[in-house]
Amino acid sequence: MLDGKTLIVTGASSGIGAATAALVASQGADVISVDIVAPAMPVGRFIQADLSDRASIDRLVASLPDGIDGLANIAGLPPTRPAADVVRVNLVGLKYLTEAIVPKLANDASIVNLASLAGLGWPEATEAIRASAALDFDGVPAFCDAHAIEGARSYFFSKEALIVWTMQHRWTWRSRGIRMNAVSPGPVDTPILKDFIETLGARAEEDMRTMDRPGRPGDIAPVVAFLLSDASAWIRGTNIPVDGGMFSDVLCRMHGL
Amino acid sequence: MLDGKTLIVTGASSGIGAATAALVASQGADVISVDIVAPAMPVGRFIQADLSDRASIDRLVASLPDGIDGLANIAGLPPTRPAADVVRVNLVGLKYLTEAIVPKLANDASIVNLASLAGLGWPEATEAIRASAALDFDGVPAFCDAHAIEGARSYFFSKEALIVWTMQHRWTWRSRGIRMNAVSPGPVDTPILKDFIETLGARAEEDMRTMDRPGRPGDIAPVVAFLLSDASAWIRGTNIPVDGGMFSDVLCRMHGL
Repeated sequence: MLDGKTLIVTGASSGIGAATAALVASQGADVISVDIVAPAMPVGRFIQADLSDRASIDRLVASLPDGIDGLANIAGLPPTRPAADVVRVNLVGLKYLTEAIVPKLANDASIVNLASLAGLGWPEATEAIRASAALDFDGVPAFCDAHAIEGARSYFFSKEALIVWTMQHRWTWRSRGIRMNAVSPGPVDTPILKDFIETLGARAEEDMRTMDRPGRPGDIAPVVAFLLSDASAWIRGTNIPVDGGMFSDVLCRMHGL
Repeated sequence: MLDGKTLIVTGASSGIGAATAALVASQGADVISVDIVAPAMPVGRFIQADLSDRASIDRLVASLPDGIDGLANIAGLPPTRPAADVVRVNLVGLKYLTEAIVPKLANDASIVNLASLAGLGWPEATEAIRASAALDFDGVPAFCDAHAIEGARSYFFSKEALIVWTMQHRWTWRSRGIRMNAVSPGPVDTPILKDFIETLGARAEEDMRTMDRPGRPGDIAPVVAFLLSDASAWIRGTNIPVDGGMFSDVLCRMHGL
């Protein structure tokens, strides 16, 4: 399904990134794994990079070959980390890396962004999201101050803005057949699930009571792999919830259905 | 990918249904094709049925085996047909068929409903959608009168209600691992594309100017096949736009992004 494709997976050393790297490799892809820490079990070629650091991203991109068929932007920080770091890695670094890689993408390449159920409130945050369009690495602390982005809000905001950025690029590169989409897991059973629930508070606890079980990295990776494959070529600028029904549950309750 | 699965595809004689039946058969599925007219090139076993007619659906279901792994509800009427017929086939017949088949589904089966970009306005139609919950075949003309559903509105309404019904069943059958999702194409290049554009008027013409090309059945079928496969097991109650970016375009314009 992914035979002969060269794919970059960020966040490949753990969780959903590790599951994705392993899965796409098993489907025939040539994987370039990127993470800030080296993986226990490397999949394909590993390149260390720090997505909060422009110079580190520049070095990463310089070391990449041309003709890349897909980029899975899975690296991200949880809401337990300092707010400015979360926005810098999950949003600014992700966007900077993606835009730097676009010239190295092959025609018909696919970009997949790991968003989150936490980003579903983007329609209520459009003002701050618009203001983030030109945000650079150095401007993040001032931006967070100006938009009251502190604590766990940094995580929600980074995912809201990521979903919007994905929609905004629905057909930016369509003349080359390059598309971008997002995948939004709900709570996923990784080592940081407990931190998520504690940090996100009552809503996350309620979500966990509503669910029959949390998601697993192996639930999410096949959807990322599908979006990286040619089978999904007509899906553009879309955010796909992969959350066991949580997003639909929120929508139904919001609309009295 | 679908090896050994028994899948039912309605509307299998033309367009997206025919493309889906052919694709899932090529992926190893045992296909039961359903349509009101016999296909030119039958895929698997063909059963004739009229989804506007309860007795015909009852006969269809009685003839089906147990242990069905998936149901692709693709049959549907275009907005050029009488309003009551559109609602009867696209909504009432689809729901009746699905609920009748559930007892014959295997654990972990997948149901996929072909909705449409035309259904994106469901949040503005929740009152009529709620009223349609108990709608039966005979009640359709009075229902359409009561809710001012005439002409092309029948098509929009049927797809709005289908998206909502899909969300409402996000986890109705989760104890058996059975899930239901929807796929929403934009304009698709089938023999009735011109009828769609004429009937739907200015909006559809504008859509076609915005798109680089219309969709094709071969763009949509792989997404239906993915949702029928185990790779999508954690996607529940979700509507996936497969429209080259049209839905994201509408959302961005709606929110000034």
